Amino acid sequence: MQRIAIDMDDVLADATGRFIEYVYQRHGVTVARDELRTGLEQKAGVPYSQVREWLYEDGFFRGMAVIPGSQDVVARLMQKYEVFIVSAAIEFPQSLREKVEWLAEHFPFINWKHIVLCGHKYMIQADYLIDDHEKNLAAFPGKPVVYTAPHNVHLTAYTRVNNWAEVAELFL
Amino acid sequence: MQRIAIDMDDVLADATGRFIEYVYQRHGVTVARDELRTGLEQKAGVPYSQVREWLYEDGFFRGMAVIPGSQDVVARLMQKYEVFIVSAAIEFPQSLREKVEWLAEHFPFINWKHIVLCGHKYMIQADYLIDDHEKNLAAFPGKPVVYTAPHNVHLTAYTRVNNWAEVAELFL
Repeated sequence: MQRIAIDMDDVLADATGRFIEYVYQRHGVTVARDELRTGLEQKAGVPYSQVREWLYEDGFFRGMAVIPGSQDVVARLMQKYEVFIVSAAIEFPQSLREKVEWLAEHFPFINWKHIVLCGHKYMIQADYLIDDHEKNLAAFPGKPVVYTAPHNVHLTAYTRVNNWAEVAELFL
Repeated sequence: MQRIAIDMDDVLADATGRFIEYVYQRHGVTVARDELRTGLEQKAGVPYSQVREWLYEDGFFRGMAVIPGSQDVVARLMQKYEVFIVSAAIEFPQSLREKVEWLAEHFPFINWKHIVLCGHKYMIQADYLIDDHEKNLAAFPGKPVVYTAPHNVHLTAYTRVNNWAEVAELFL
């Protein structure tokens, strides 16, 4: 059985949407998804470095919305593949429990034995990695698949999926 | 550079000693290391299944003592090997932050990028695994090394180390 490693933030969990929610709540400004890294300082006077501090706050990860379609497609992938959820989360110690609890709530069919919280991902042995970050994709020894997010639209070296329907198309 | 994966409980952190400490605090009975699983019910009227519940308590992991010699030898291993700390901890969500904080306190020279908290360990790609649990050693695709603990003294199929001086002898 082939093994697929699946990232959490901006693949299963809507991290970008969570940032936009916090920008609105705390600064009263609505930014578009593709403005978060580029237009935020201009529109809201908030440097992106400040936004990154929210990653260390209690509740930031726990409250993320589920990316549409991911629950159904992951469940179907698990019938054909060995699925591991692999999240680079050790940098944010308060997020670790939140991530496990988030998965238990939204993906109750994923056993805790198939969850990995790590720093690097390059020592994870899998056939595929679905991820939004170039640093993870570039170092992965198996076949990397980029899941579209505003910060990776410029990447051309990887098989790309834009949504979970496209993940299903690629793997099922 | 070869890669060594090192377990935490009963390899870096004295989990057995922590159980013994709790048995004494809560039941007023002193048990020896090799009595924890076998003599505990007889001596203290405490079934081992009850002891296992302490694994879900706040502070159990955070308060473990460091196994003697491990800090010095891990620091020396890191000069010759790529070292990852790999702990099967997802089953205990409250332990995750505690484990990262414990490592930051006692092994501050280990970068968070080299910490992995997981369920299974068999998808970790490494040349060596130093671990006390047969389930991890048996499934590991690299070379397994058993670190002696009361619950693994019967194993004969693995290279064995009894303390950190023997780890240094084997790898340095």
